[in-house]
Amino acid sequence: MLEQIKEANDIKLIDPSEYRELAREIRRFLVRKVSRTGGHLASNLGVVELTMAMHLCCDLPEDKIVWDVGHQCYTHKILTGRQDAFDSLRQYGGMSGFPKRGESECDAMDTGHSSTSISAALGLAKARDLQGRHNKIFAVIGDGALSGGMAYEALNNAARLRSNMIIVLNDNQMSISKNVGGMSNYLGKIRTDTNYTELKQDVENALEKLPHFGNRLTERIRGVKDLIKRIFIPGMLFEDMGITYIGPIDGHDIGQMVTAFNSASKLNAAVIVHVVTQKGKGYPPAQKDPSSFHGVGPFRVSDGTLLHSKKDVPTYTKVFQNVMLETMEDREDVVAISAAMPTGTGLSAVAEQYPDRFFDVGIAEEHAVTFAAGLALGGSRPVVALYSTFLQRAYDQILHDVCIGSLPVVFAVDRAGLVGSDGETHQGIFDIAFLSQMPNLTVMAPKNSQELEDMFSFAFAQEGPVAIRYSRGAVYDGLSDHREAIRVGRSEWIHTGRDIAVIAVGSMVEVAVHVVEMLQQKGLDPTLINARFVKPMDEQMLKQVAAQHSIVVTMEDGVITGGFGQAVAAWYAATERGEKCPKIVNIALPDAFIEHGTVQQLRSKYGQDAESVAARIEQVWRQQ
Amino acid sequence: MLEQIKEANDIKLIDPSEYRELAREIRRFLVRKVSRTGGHLASNLGVVELTMAMHLCCDLPEDKIVWDVGHQCYTHKILTGRQDAFDSLRQYGGMSGFPKRGESECDAMDTGHSSTSISAALGLAKARDLQGRHNKIFAVIGDGALSGGMAYEALNNAARLRSNMIIVLNDNQMSISKNVGGMSNYLGKIRTDTNYTELKQDVENALEKLPHFGNRLTERIRGVKDLIKRIFIPGMLFEDMGITYIGPIDGHDIGQMVTAFNSASKLNAAVIVHVVTQKGKGYPPAQKDPSSFHGVGPFRVSDGTLLHSKKDVPTYTKVFQNVMLETMEDREDVVAISAAMPTGTGLSAVAEQYPDRFFDVGIAEEHAVTFAAGLALGGSRPVVALYSTFLQRAYDQILHDVCIGSLPVVFAVDRAGLVGSDGETHQGIFDIAFLSQMPNLTVMAPKNSQELEDMFSFAFAQEGPVAIRYSRGAVYDGLSDHREAIRVGRSEWIHTGRDIAVIAVGSMVEVAVHVVEMLQQKGLDPTLINARFVKPMDEQMLKQVAAQHSIVVTMEDGVITGGFGQAVAAWYAATERGEKCPKIVNIALPDAFIEHGTVQQLRSKYGQDAESVAARIEQVWRQQ
Repeated sequence: MLEQIKEANDIKLIDPSEYRELAREIRRFLVRKVSRTGGHLASNLGVVELTMAMHLCCDLPEDKIVWDVGHQCYTHKILTGRQDAFDSLRQYGGMSGFPKRGESECDAMDTGHSSTSISAALGLAKARDLQGRHNKIFAVIGDGALSGGMAYEALNNAARLRSNMIIVLNDNQMSISKNVGGMSNYLGKIRTDTNYTELKQDVENALEKLPHFGNRLTERIRGVKDLIKRIFIPGMLFEDMGITYIGPIDGHDIGQMVTAFNSASKLNAAVIVHVVTQKGKGYPPAQKDPSSFHGVGPFRVSDGTLLHSKKDVPTYTKVFQNVMLETMEDREDVVAISAAMPTGTGLSAVAEQYPDRFFDVGIAEEHAVTFAAGLALGGSRPVVALYSTFLQRAYDQILHDVCIGSLPVVFAVDRAGLVGSDGETHQGIFDIAFLSQMPNLTVMAPKNSQELEDMFSFAFAQEGPVAIRYSRGAVYDGLSDHREAIRVGRSEWIHTGRDIAVIAVGSMVEVAVHVVEMLQQKGLDPTLINARFVKPMDEQMLKQVAAQHSIVVTMEDGVITGGFGQAVAAWYAATERGEKCPKIVNIALPDAFIEHGTVQQLRSKYGQDAESVAARIEQVWRQQ
Repeated sequence: MLEQIKEANDIKLIDPSEYRELAREIRRFLVRKVSRTGGHLASNLGVVELTMAMHLCCDLPEDKIVWDVGHQCYTHKILTGRQDAFDSLRQYGGMSGFPKRGESECDAMDTGHSSTSISAALGLAKARDLQGRHNKIFAVIGDGALSGGMAYEALNNAARLRSNMIIVLNDNQMSISKNVGGMSNYLGKIRTDTNYTELKQDVENALEKLPHFGNRLTERIRGVKDLIKRIFIPGMLFEDMGITYIGPIDGHDIGQMVTAFNSASKLNAAVIVHVVTQKGKGYPPAQKDPSSFHGVGPFRVSDGTLLHSKKDVPTYTKVFQNVMLETMEDREDVVAISAAMPTGTGLSAVAEQYPDRFFDVGIAEEHAVTFAAGLALGGSRPVVALYSTFLQRAYDQILHDVCIGSLPVVFAVDRAGLVGSDGETHQGIFDIAFLSQMPNLTVMAPKNSQELEDMFSFAFAQEGPVAIRYSRGAVYDGLSDHREAIRVGRSEWIHTGRDIAVIAVGSMVEVAVHVVEMLQQKGLDPTLINARFVKPMDEQMLKQVAAQHSIVVTMEDGVITGGFGQAVAAWYAATERGEKCPKIVNIALPDAFIEHGTVQQLRSKYGQDAESVAARIEQVWRQQ
């Protein structure tokens, strides 16, 4: 049946009696494809019927579907004629795992971060109204993403603007990990309290009996209809905010959803349609363990076993986890904060062992950082563990709430640098630039796993804020004999050579080791320096380097603009210091968004691998 | 009576019968002082009794009061022994208009931006619990600040953590301008619907009559107590989120508030105490026009007339307003967005003239930007007008939601550079750095008012995002004969001299004109270039400059790290371009937060005034 779907809107040609079979085929397709390429599985299995129902109500690409985060758009990609591209899913040069306008007119927006869909959809709705058009606009947002403050800001504005749009609240009863917080409890109450729904009919029948109440009371109640509604309308919280609410609806019942979407699309207002779905539905291993099948590598279809077990690969995340467990045993004042990513950031073990000192605040990075500021003000020593790309969301909170007060908050910046197959929305390539510009903040990056440990020990001894950035995946274990004590703003000389000095940041030290080896084979003998500190910069080292070398090469896995290399170059060029300005080569990522692919592929493409860097240095050397 | 208050907690020595008189004295004090120095008035007059009530319940500094935004902390400063400092309020070297830990132990946190207080207070509360202490913690948040998403994120987390803290919702029925959105309507409903409060008693009495209901219904209702509560508890939205709600309470009745705070402090949970206050209370001019008396310059006490009428000073904000009015007349696709600052950003006239194409989203910068992204995707041409310091809050939304898609959103970045008396939380000194690092974004700054107009025309003709940054206060009207057409990434040569080239950004062009004059008097003849584009940088110009000058001076009113000057320096130092590297002098603000003072005072202190810059250049020239 899947073969009949060649492009957008083809689903409407399918007979309703076959929807169930189509859903089954889509699930089989998803499991088969993702088992080979890896990707997001559980969430995609959960929204098969939901996606079908929206497509049945839509005329694409006129109608718009904005996927919050976007990793759950696989069925949407299938139904818009991209089946064939699934073999290259998330591969270099292949199809993205997220919506991309460049891929299809039916992708309304390039997304990747959380809680943005209602804002974007509201903008689309308002633009439509201003232009006198009447297309439908959907935002699909998970219950996890609804904990993000932006979603609430958007609901506030949607209530006011009274444009039609359908906010599909895809409630799968958990975000990536267990959901948290007030809103989540509220949704849980709606879902589980059968009284809400069963009561509805009863109360409606009973309304006529109201005259039997005391007189004065009856009068009042009759005059305040919306107070009465409180008794039998679930979703009153949304109604209180001025958003019409429909639900909860079975998110695997296409007929029910189509009916709801069609009635919702007739109102002059934003409507929340609350659908309850099951993550991993239809594939038992994912259903049983949706967290592991959220983002997954290649696996065996028969039982869900991972083909490349990651268990034994030591990662920086795991090293961080151990550092935290040890530190929290020693120091009662240390607490840990995650924004809905305890597993991803390595804090699950902390959560288990120190439940009172671990806080998962939900998808709410801004709150996470300012909450940490409050904890620091109160005498605790908070560690905020976030992926680099999500730390961007708390730019002002780091600057304004932590750095102005110079509060001792430690930022564990995971997934810094290139992250690979999630692509442009997830690369952690801006943190060096945006953290460097924050006064009072110390910014560090370790060369290997030992140094990660040492840097955290160092950070806990500081009186101000410290960010430690480290990359995704396996640790580098080389250079283990280089373990000089960490001192504020001091770099580490790994090898003292001549003429050329290579100063590398964090994970680029490993690449730089290879660069030096390659150049040594060509008869050159470059000096190799591990920067350790992005900020404060080691000016003493820079002076020393200039005195002894004519070429200085910087290496970092972040964007060039505002990065470490530019700061080094600018330092040398600032004439008043009276230094001789060496020739500078900045190895960094270009001023651009970086697509998906393996880290190695992307490093090659952008001239960040050892071969490219060595070649570039050699060329500069020869041109001298 | 005010004389009896010499330090924190002294208010407790006052006899309750005298509270009313004390409040009167405080108001007189505030009006008198602010009439001379200028400052925030209306909001401070509104919270006199509220502040007194909190101080009566507090033991400072053990107990903590976190002021959201913080401009309403004047009475708090009076009650903590800082009366004498009011003569220097917001003056260079004097007392800040915001809470500062450096000023007093009783200031719990340095604040200035909105919607952060609940997060910070929750952190303080949790740290207290972990340490087994029992001090009280207050967050005071306005109804306007409650529209910020962070506040909602914090409420979500507070509901979960079950630590005692008192969230005082200071509901003055408007933020700086008229309040907007769903939450605001909800609060309005609570405030005005007398049924809510009157009904409460009735329903409680009537509860015993429930058995007269139909049997099945009665049974159910009895089993679902919290459903019943919906009928008579205002603030059910908060209760639904799991936050205990008390209110609404008269925010000018000290006794009522003290009772509420004391009962609230006994619960094992976060409690919202909803107090209704009146902005400007007690001073008729501020009461009548709280918006004008939000932030005000010196005024005549007798009738509130401003001593220095700003009406006739042409500002960049006003020029922007006119540009918008003209553009929106010509182009139906242009729409404007403000985040609770229509007046401050010059959009009030737009709001009046084009109500359908103007959107005030409340204090919700993140939503503002992504909403604009949606509008752009839908074919509108949105302009988002924000102060530079608040634009920081939408860092990720600009980068992720606008720049990845390269959507045609125009950012009108007002109050860029030094802003003066609001001090470190409000200086617009980071935008050059953080906007420069965003791929696909064009960043511009005009030298004078005409150029502001030209830049907006240019921006509306672009296919991607453009940010135009301009400073607070009076426009520069010099150089009006220099009005070369604007071309992408091209700077403007104002004067071609020799040896030294000065490249200035935006408002620093005016300063540079004086620098050049001063140097000319010393026999030097520097070239003067108006950068126009921070990004993309004019590389052709940089080449030309290097060929003809040995010293290049950059001038910008932003932080040095990651700024324009460093990018220029780095460009020259990057050896592979084969350019001769001139000597570089970067005039920029240091890597630090900049305190309050007049722009002129701060420029002098930080070497940004014409005299300092000229002297520095001359020195470099002589050392050559």
